[in-house]
Amino acid sequence: MKTVKRKKTARKLGKAGAAKKAGMPPGSLIHVGTIKTDRTVIDLIEYDGNEILDKKDIDLKTAESYLNTSKTTWIKVTGLHDINMIAKLGEVFGLHALILEDILNTGQRPKIDLLDDHIFLTMKAIHKPSAEDEIAADQISIILRKNLLISFHESSLSIFSSLNERLTVATSRLRTKGPDYLFYAIIDLIVDHYFSVIEGTGELIDDIEDAIFELSSEEALPRIQNVKKDLLLLKKYIFPLRDALSTIIKLESDLINIDNHKYFRDVYDHIMQIYESIESYRDLNSGLKDIYLSTLSNKMNEVMKTLTIIATIFIPLTFIAGIYGMNFDHMPELHFEYGYFVIWLFMISVAVLMIFYFRRKKWL
Amino acid sequence: MKTVKRKKTARKLGKAGAAKKAGMPPGSLIHVGTIKTDRTVIDLIEYDGNEILDKKDIDLKTAESYLNTSKTTWIKVTGLHDINMIAKLGEVFGLHALILEDILNTGQRPKIDLLDDHIFLTMKAIHKPSAEDEIAADQISIILRKNLLISFHESSLSIFSSLNERLTVATSRLRTKGPDYLFYAIIDLIVDHYFSVIEGTGELIDDIEDAIFELSSEEALPRIQNVKKDLLLLKKYIFPLRDALSTIIKLESDLINIDNHKYFRDVYDHIMQIYESIESYRDLNSGLKDIYLSTLSNKMNEVMKTLTIIATIFIPLTFIAGIYGMNFDHMPELHFEYGYFVIWLFMISVAVLMIFYFRRKKWL
Amino acid sequence: MKTVKRKKTARKLGKAGAAKKAGMPPGSLIHVGTIKTDRTVIDLIEYDGNEILDKKDIDLKTAESYLNTSKTTWIKVTGLHDINMIAKLGEVFGLHALILEDILNTGQRPKIDLLDDHIFLTMKAIHKPSAEDEIAADQISIILRKNLLISFHESSLSIFSSLNERLTVATSRLRTKGPDYLFYAIIDLIVDHYFSVIEGTGELIDDIEDAIFELSSEEALPRIQNVKKDLLLLKKYIFPLRDALSTIIKLESDLINIDNHKYFRDVYDHIMQIYESIESYRDLNSGLKDIYLSTLSNKMNEVMKTLTIIATIFIPLTFIAGIYGMNFDHMPELHFEYGYFVIWLFMISVAVLMIFYFRRKKWL
Amino acid sequence: MKTVKRKKTARKLGKAGAAKKAGMPPGSLIHVGTIKTDRTVIDLIEYDGNEILDKKDIDLKTAESYLNTSKTTWIKVTGLHDINMIAKLGEVFGLHALILEDILNTGQRPKIDLLDDHIFLTMKAIHKPSAEDEIAADQISIILRKNLLISFHESSLSIFSSLNERLTVATSRLRTKGPDYLFYAIIDLIVDHYFSVIEGTGELIDDIEDAIFELSSEEALPRIQNVKKDLLLLKKYIFPLRDALSTIIKLESDLINIDNHKYFRDVYDHIMQIYESIESYRDLNSGLKDIYLSTLSNKMNEVMKTLTIIATIFIPLTFIAGIYGMNFDHMPELHFEYGYFVIWLFMISVAVLMIFYFRRKKWL
Amino acid sequence: MKTVKRKKTARKLGKAGAAKKAGMPPGSLIHVGTIKTDRTVIDLIEYDGNEILDKKDIDLKTAESYLNTSKTTWIKVTGLHDINMIAKLGEVFGLHALILEDILNTGQRPKIDLLDDHIFLTMKAIHKPSAEDEIAADQISIILRKNLLISFHESSLSIFSSLNERLTVATSRLRTKGPDYLFYAIIDLIVDHYFSVIEGTGELIDDIEDAIFELSSEEALPRIQNVKKDLLLLKKYIFPLRDALSTIIKLESDLINIDNHKYFRDVYDHIMQIYESIESYRDLNSGLKDIYLSTLSNKMNEVMKTLTIIATIFIPLTFIAGIYGMNFDHMPELHFEYGYFVIWLFMISVAVLMIFYFRRKKWL
Repeated sequence: MKTVKRKKTARKLGKAGAAKKAGMPPGSLIHVGTIKTDRTVIDLIEYDGNEILDKKDIDLKTAESYLNTSKTTWIKVTGLHDINMIAKLGEVFGLHALILEDILNTGQRPKIDLLDDHIFLTMKAIHKPSAEDEIAADQISIILRKNLLISFHESSLSIFSSLNERLTVATSRLRTKGPDYLFYAIIDLIVDHYFSVIEGTGELIDDIEDAIFELSSEEALPRIQNVKKDLLLLKKYIFPLRDALSTIIKLESDLINIDNHKYFRDVYDHIMQIYESIESYRDLNSGLKDIYLSTLSNKMNEVMKTLTIIATIFIPLTFIAGIYGMNFDHMPELHFEYGYFVIWLFMISVAVLMIFYFRRKKWL
Repeated sequence: MKTVKRKKTARKLGKAGAAKKAGMPPGSLIHVGTIKTDRTVIDLIEYDGNEILDKKDIDLKTAESYLNTSKTTWIKVTGLHDINMIAKLGEVFGLHALILEDILNTGQRPKIDLLDDHIFLTMKAIHKPSAEDEIAADQISIILRKNLLISFHESSLSIFSSLNERLTVATSRLRTKGPDYLFYAIIDLIVDHYFSVIEGTGELIDDIEDAIFELSSEEALPRIQNVKKDLLLLKKYIFPLRDALSTIIKLESDLINIDNHKYFRDVYDHIMQIYESIESYRDLNSGLKDIYLSTLSNKMNEVMKTLTIIATIFIPLTFIAGIYGMNFDHMPELHFEYGYFVIWLFMISVAVLMIFYFRRKKWL
Repeated sequence: MKTVKRKKTARKLGKAGAAKKAGMPPGSLIHVGTIKTDRTVIDLIEYDGNEILDKKDIDLKTAESYLNTSKTTWIKVTGLHDINMIAKLGEVFGLHALILEDILNTGQRPKIDLLDDHIFLTMKAIHKPSAEDEIAADQISIILRKNLLISFHESSLSIFSSLNERLTVATSRLRTKGPDYLFYAIIDLIVDHYFSVIEGTGELIDDIEDAIFELSSEEALPRIQNVKKDLLLLKKYIFPLRDALSTIIKLESDLINIDNHKYFRDVYDHIMQIYESIESYRDLNSGLKDIYLSTLSNKMNEVMKTLTIIATIFIPLTFIAGIYGMNFDHMPELHFEYGYFVIWLFMISVAVLMIFYFRRKKWL
Repeated sequence: MKTVKRKKTARKLGKAGAAKKAGMPPGSLIHVGTIKTDRTVIDLIEYDGNEILDKKDIDLKTAESYLNTSKTTWIKVTGLHDINMIAKLGEVFGLHALILEDILNTGQRPKIDLLDDHIFLTMKAIHKPSAEDEIAADQISIILRKNLLISFHESSLSIFSSLNERLTVATSRLRTKGPDYLFYAIIDLIVDHYFSVIEGTGELIDDIEDAIFELSSEEALPRIQNVKKDLLLLKKYIFPLRDALSTIIKLESDLINIDNHKYFRDVYDHIMQIYESIESYRDLNSGLKDIYLSTLSNKMNEVMKTLTIIATIFIPLTFIAGIYGMNFDHMPELHFEYGYFVIWLFMISVAVLMIFYFRRKKWL
Repeated sequence: MKTVKRKKTARKLGKAGAAKKAGMPPGSLIHVGTIKTDRTVIDLIEYDGNEILDKKDIDLKTAESYLNTSKTTWIKVTGLHDINMIAKLGEVFGLHALILEDILNTGQRPKIDLLDDHIFLTMKAIHKPSAEDEIAADQISIILRKNLLISFHESSLSIFSSLNERLTVATSRLRTKGPDYLFYAIIDLIVDHYFSVIEGTGELIDDIEDAIFELSSEEALPRIQNVKKDLLLLKKYIFPLRDALSTIIKLESDLINIDNHKYFRDVYDHIMQIYESIESYRDLNSGLKDIYLSTLSNKMNEVMKTLTIIATIFIPLTFIAGIYGMNFDHMPELHFEYGYFVIWLFMISVAVLMIFYFRRKKWL
């Protein structure tokens, strides 16, 4: 029998990187998490409605020269474990040590920070290769400044390629609007990928239910537990995002055009929908456990009934046979001509009566 | 035995259509859901207190000419899968791409959007042919503008015919009031149909309870699970509506006459009542599961008692019979004249004592 | 055995009358509920500190003449199924169709409506003949206007007679204060009757607990379920009332003298107390179910122990007896002089050892 | 075996006295509760930083003469069943009928009432002689007015004697501050006594857990249930107090010096701490029930294993013995010279194999 | 078998020291808790960007002379049981009796008090030597005044040494910023140590789950219960801190530079993360109990199946053998030549049929 792989999620749910750094001054730059790329790569796209400039793998110097242009600049930093590089980046981009710390700590809780001249948002991009796999999370941190958006990625996720494609279309909304729309587009892209994980979870729950009702697989319990853990992780990633988006919607700032609020409201709605789905699934999933337990009880009942029926029919009969197996000198029945025949009749009657009794009790 | 059809609701609870579109620019028009009509049909009713004009299946051009009249115009669009048509409609009616996207995505969470010169509301009209059937949901999206209401329907539901009838009555409140009252009337109509589903669910819960207490049907568990899923779906549809209506009640806008707020308050009250019923039912329903489990335990107890009584009476007796079936050369009792008779007496005494013991223990 | 009558409460919890009316224009007057009186009766009391006038069963014309006096007028309408009558009443008293609809729909959720020149409150007066009976609810709707209070009753409940008595006492606070105090007095009277139902429920829960611990009655489960349903109904009636009273307390209106706010605050406190009792009872009651299940498990344990003790003592012994009942030609033990005696000794030793073992295991 | 005394707490949780008075005018003076003293006694203490005057058991006339002095006067009324006395007191002290009603109704929910020139607070002083005893509650009602504090006590509790002692110390904060500090001191004193009950409950929960894990006493369930009831009662008494204190902290009134707010904040903190402890205990306590159930299941498992091992070893062996006890004419094995010896060997082998099987299954 | 040490946490959860002091005037100085040092030691560090002065174990006089300097002074008081010393300290530092009381009462709930010219914060520093150990908590109380920070410690914890080290670095943020940053640094240090306990708990939960699924250790239950208690304690310590930090963030005061708010916001985020982890763990942990119970049920099922299979195969066979062991004079079968052979065939057929039956039922 294939064994369901159980997930070490409890470990993950508590990981925050902070433990690793306890006792160090706040703002100490330490990369917390797995190294997912071999080095830190900086890509840059500068665009407005007319032109677009796409530069791959540039050095920091080059990047710096694009910081204060009137066009929209998107700097994409992939790979977070090179602390020196990130520290230099922080200096060049004018980022506070606390923010750099959050960018490097991949156990960071999703959050938004509103600062004087920039907005900092950190969230998780998730993907889940198949229903039974673990949820993989990449931390995406975004800095939004005037005419500038800097995004930090743990690894180069394929999902972002769609943005590049859309940017190449000169008439696309992405091209004609500023960095706040790009900011929205990234969040929207990430949130949309939550939906696929959510839909997969829904199908998984339906499947487990089928398995319980039809085959009552013994694997049901670890599978239910795995779904539970997935939902806890999803909740952990989505719940704080709700507050972050709600902050953006209520924000009065030059950085986000009030006309674009409707887009962020739309993402907010999506987050709410994801959140409600998670809650419904938690409910359904914990209900599955109860159904599984009921099935166990039902099976036990059936087993016990079988035993009881067999035992209560044959134990009395065996007793009767035992009686006439005794060796007393004086047992008159033994010498009756039809004794053996009569005793058979009697035993059959007892058995039939028992069966009737069980019928009436609805055990048969 | 008739098997209760189990519902794939988990799947539904997570469906949002967003997964299908991940990576596409926001506002991309994709129809998400089942195609329920063969083509998109536009009906139009223009009315005021004096006149009423009812036009079926008109083309977009004709519809456009009624957009800016001083009478109230109700444009009813049925069938959502013809994306080109809907896109053109959006252009003609001046609807934002995000709104068109929500109209087409039948997995959209119910919500209200307040825009400069129009209000957008999307919700689910539900119906449930019989108690054991799945809840069918049709997404209804409504645009309220000055003198104009546009409603988008997945299919042509019979429940809306009552509105047409009421509109034909010149003295009806519907005729004499503006599009905001029509807006209310549609919402009210849809919400009222939730009550029939709720009442059906109540009866179903009572029925399941009866079944458990009286017959202890093995079908109880999937039926309870089905009710649970129905309630989760209902909650999913009704819960966000509460916020939407509460937004309308607090709204200060030219689009909704302040005099008509009382009507929306009334719908809000109905939604609250539905919501509270759902919560009560969730409570009752999850209680049913416990009762079912208790019944299983009770049955098991009865089975075990039967086994125990039979076994504890006959096992010792069989042992005694076994003793005197032994073939030792020297077993004095075997040669007593009344040995057989005495051993019968002894065995009957043991049985009677056992029965008294069980009586005292209240097992018999 | 007396069978506990189970209640069809799920049905009740969802009933709202709205289903019956789906598709009809809002404000359609339909009486929803049981007809509890044979006709609609109008009683009128006009009073101030000096005089009191008590008129029974008057016609609408007479009633109308008392509408605009400077004394306090209480019009009491009993019996709600005569729609024409109620419609006329609504016209004469100037009540909006939506309010008339709420008055007639006895499935209406308790609520308060603040209108320009009157306050509308609808709530449930409950009574419960005995602990095991169903909760009976009568909908009471009250209109408070300047110098006027109109109350609508499903049937003539005896509990209101105390008000009439108090009104006859010229020095009573009820006589000397205006219709707002009468308004309060009616609410207070109804709420006070909730306490008797609550107290009865408390005693019932204690009784069920006694039954479970002492006799472990099989009727425990339906009784617990009945209490659960009662509490759900009570919650349904009381919960919305909390908001209604809180609205009154915060109200700044000519209709309610600010001096009398303390009385409404007192009722509010009572409602809170009822609400907290309901919550505590729900907790205790659901705990009873667990205790009942534990008791079942305990009993099963006892049954199984008995079986196990008997079986494990006698099955090995029977085996030994079986051995010496075999018919092999060469079984030396059978021919020992004290064989039979020794085998008895051996079997008794085995039994005694078993009993010691069970003692050590605390099974005996 | 000593039986744990179960508590009739459900009854208590619902008792509010209101039922007794249903139908009577509000403000009707009825003493609700047990009579705990033989008569109503009035004690009076008048003090300022210089002088203190302590008068025991004075009459109302004497008390009245101290009402409007510039020193702080504390009038302590013990014993509440003498309605006439209390009514007179109310007149002399200028207390509203509703407040007198609350003072007399010992089922009153703790609450604060802010009136024009006085503050009314009613709460419960609790004590619990031993861990297994019921919580006894005395209602303490306090009126705070300018230079005056009147407290109403159901009985003379020893805990208040510490206040008298502290008042005799001229330099104590109690002496040098006004009636608002006395007000605080009484509340603080009562709240502090909640902590001892809470600590006792904590120890009791630890004890029950020990009992379950070590001895698995059958008394566990009623003990757990008793703790549950205690916690519900404590919650009932403490929860409304939170709001009351929070009202005081936010109060801007001449009656409470703003400098003394810190004291009330301190009491508020204590109440929060008690409240959180109650919640933690409810959690732990309901967990105990689950542990108890697990223990039952574990025991059952052990019992069943014993039975199964014995039965599955000996039932097949008995069958074999039965075979060779048959009386067929032609049974060749019976006549083999070593037949008996071989059959013993065979049976021992079967038994040994069975034991190995159980070992591998970890049942032995 | 190693027995898991169960924790007496219920006791701890309720301990507040208040019980010990009931009846004493508020502000009475009593040390509540264990004595963790042999005497009270005062250490002092005075620093600014240029200089740093580190004095160990000074007397109160010396400390006093540093109170009003323009540099930042950190006075660290270790050891709380010397009441006289603390009382003198309170006098010298101008601390209110209520604050001294809170400092001495190690059962104090974490809280913040905003006073005129200082801020008082008390919280718990926790450490947990190993996963199975109890959580040890040291109460840390901090007074923040202009240019001055006084911290009170139950014992000298090694975790604070990192602060001293960071202070020696002249360019460190700690040195260049004022006492508010030191205030933050201490809170941050303590909160960071919560993460290690949280991470340890996560690993423990994963381990327990492994144990249940793989070995189904009987120790699972007390281990789950221990985790539950740890989480309750952590919640007790962290929950009130959330409000405290949120107070600081919203604070407008000279004592905390508005520029430093971002640091406190960062700690607040950490507390939220800890809080959410605790909630997730409570969920997972209580799920483990259910899984454990399911495992018990599963085991029972297996045991019962074994018994049932053996019994239902051999009981009927034994009956048959019993039949032909009877001693009737006339039993024709006994004299058939192949009777014995036929009866063997019959019995084997019965056994094989039974086995087929069990196979079809999926019991084998």
